Amino acid sequence: MNASVAIQVLPEASSQEELIRVVDEVIAYIKSTGLNCSVGPFETTIEGDYDELMDIVKECQKIAVKAGAPYVASYVKIVYRPEGEVLSIEKKITKHHK
Amino acid sequence: MNASVAIQVLPEASSQEELIRVVDEVIAYIKSTGLNCSVGPFETTIEGDYDELMDIVKECQKIAVKAGAPYVASYVKIVYRPEGEVLSIEKKITKHHK
Amino acid sequence: MNASVAIQVLPEASSQEELIRVVDEVIAYIKSTGLNCSVGPFETTIEGDYDELMDIVKECQKIAVKAGAPYVASYVKIVYRPEGEVLSIEKKITKHHK
Amino acid sequence: MNASVAIQVLPEASSQEELIRVVDEVIAYIKSTGLNCSVGPFETTIEGDYDELMDIVKECQKIAVKAGAPYVASYVKIVYRPEGEVLSIEKKITKHHK
Repeated sequence: MNASVAIQVLPEASSQEELIRVVDEVIAYIKSTGLNCSVGPFETTIEGDYDELMDIVKECQKIAVKAGAPYVASYVKIVYRPEGEVLSIEKKITKHHK
Repeated sequence: MNASVAIQVLPEASSQEELIRVVDEVIAYIKSTGLNCSVGPFETTIEGDYDELMDIVKECQKIAVKAGAPYVASYVKIVYRPEGEVLSIEKKITKHHK
Repeated sequence: MNASVAIQVLPEASSQEELIRVVDEVIAYIKSTGLNCSVGPFETTIEGDYDELMDIVKECQKIAVKAGAPYVASYVKIVYRPEGEVLSIEKKITKHHK
Repeated sequence: MNASVAIQVLPEASSQEELIRVVDEVIAYIKSTGLNCSVGPFETTIEGDYDELMDIVKECQKIAVKAGAPYVASYVKIVYRPEGEVLSIEKKITKHHK
C-alpha cells in the first residue's frame, strides 16, 4: 500500500437533502471499488495503489455530475511513498477509537 | 451547535514515531476539551460553538510546539452557520458505518 | 515573521455575483489589517505573527456573515515556526513570476 | 474552460533547499504543460479541461519522486462545471492586484 488519499466532494445542490444524496452516491462509488476506506464527517479516506487511487479521485467528480450536480468543488489530500508503505488507516485511528 | 471544524496537524519530527507522539498529544488535547469529536486518518473533526472551536484550532499548533515540534503545518476546514445548525458528525457518518 | 496562513472563504450565496461580493469584503478586511498578503485564485495568504494571524482567520468567517452570508465554509493552511522564520511569500513566489 | 485545480506538493526533503528544489521541478513541469497557471505561496492554480488537469495532478507527485523525494504529501482543490465555465484565474484575482 504505497498511497492514501482523502477526498471531500461538495456538489452544488438545490437543498441539503439533494447535497447529501449526491455525496452518498460518491461514497457508494468509493465503497464499490473494494479498496479499504474510512468515511469521516468531511472526507473519505481510501488506501491502496497510487495510480488506482488517483483514477478513483478523478472519477469521484464525474460520479457527482452523473448524480445530478451541475458543479462540484472537491478537496483532496494525497500521501505517496512509492518505495514502501504509508501509514495505514488502521494504524492511524484504531487506538483513538478505544 | 453552530459550527464544526476539522484539523490536521503535521509537526516536523525526526522520525515517524516522534511525529505520531506529537499528533497524539494534540488529539489528547482536543479530547480534553470535552467537545464531541471524531478522529480520522488525516484529520480530527470537532463540533460546537464557533468561538470556542476557533480558540481550540489556535491552541492545537501551540500544543504541538509544547510537545517538541519546532515547526507545524496544519490544514483546517471550518463550517459556520451562526443562526442555525451545521450538519452533525453523527448525521454525516453514522449511516455509512453500518 | 513566525507564521503564515492561507485562507479560502466560501460563503453560501444566492448568485455568483453575491458570492464574489462577500469574498471581496473578506479580502478587503484582510488587506485592512496592514499585514503582508497575497491574493490568489482560491486562497489569500497572509504572513505575520501567529497569534495575530489566527485572530484574523477567526474574524474572516464573521466578516462573511456580516456581509450577508448565512453559512460559510472555509479552508485554512497554517505554518508556524515559533523560534525562527517561515518561508516568506516573496521568497516562495517571486522567482516564478519573472 | 470547465475546470480549475490548485495543488500544493510537499516533498519529504533533507533540507529546506532540497524541498525548494523539488517543488521548483514540479512547478516547472506544470508550466511546461502550456496551460494557464498562477504560482502562489502555498499552491499553484491551473485552469483548463477537467480530464487534462486531473492527469497533471496525478503526474505532479511522480515528478516530485523523480526529482528525488522519497515521500510526497499533496493538497488539491478541484472545481468542475462540465457544462459551462468556472471562474477564471484572471476574473478572480486581477482586480485585487491593482
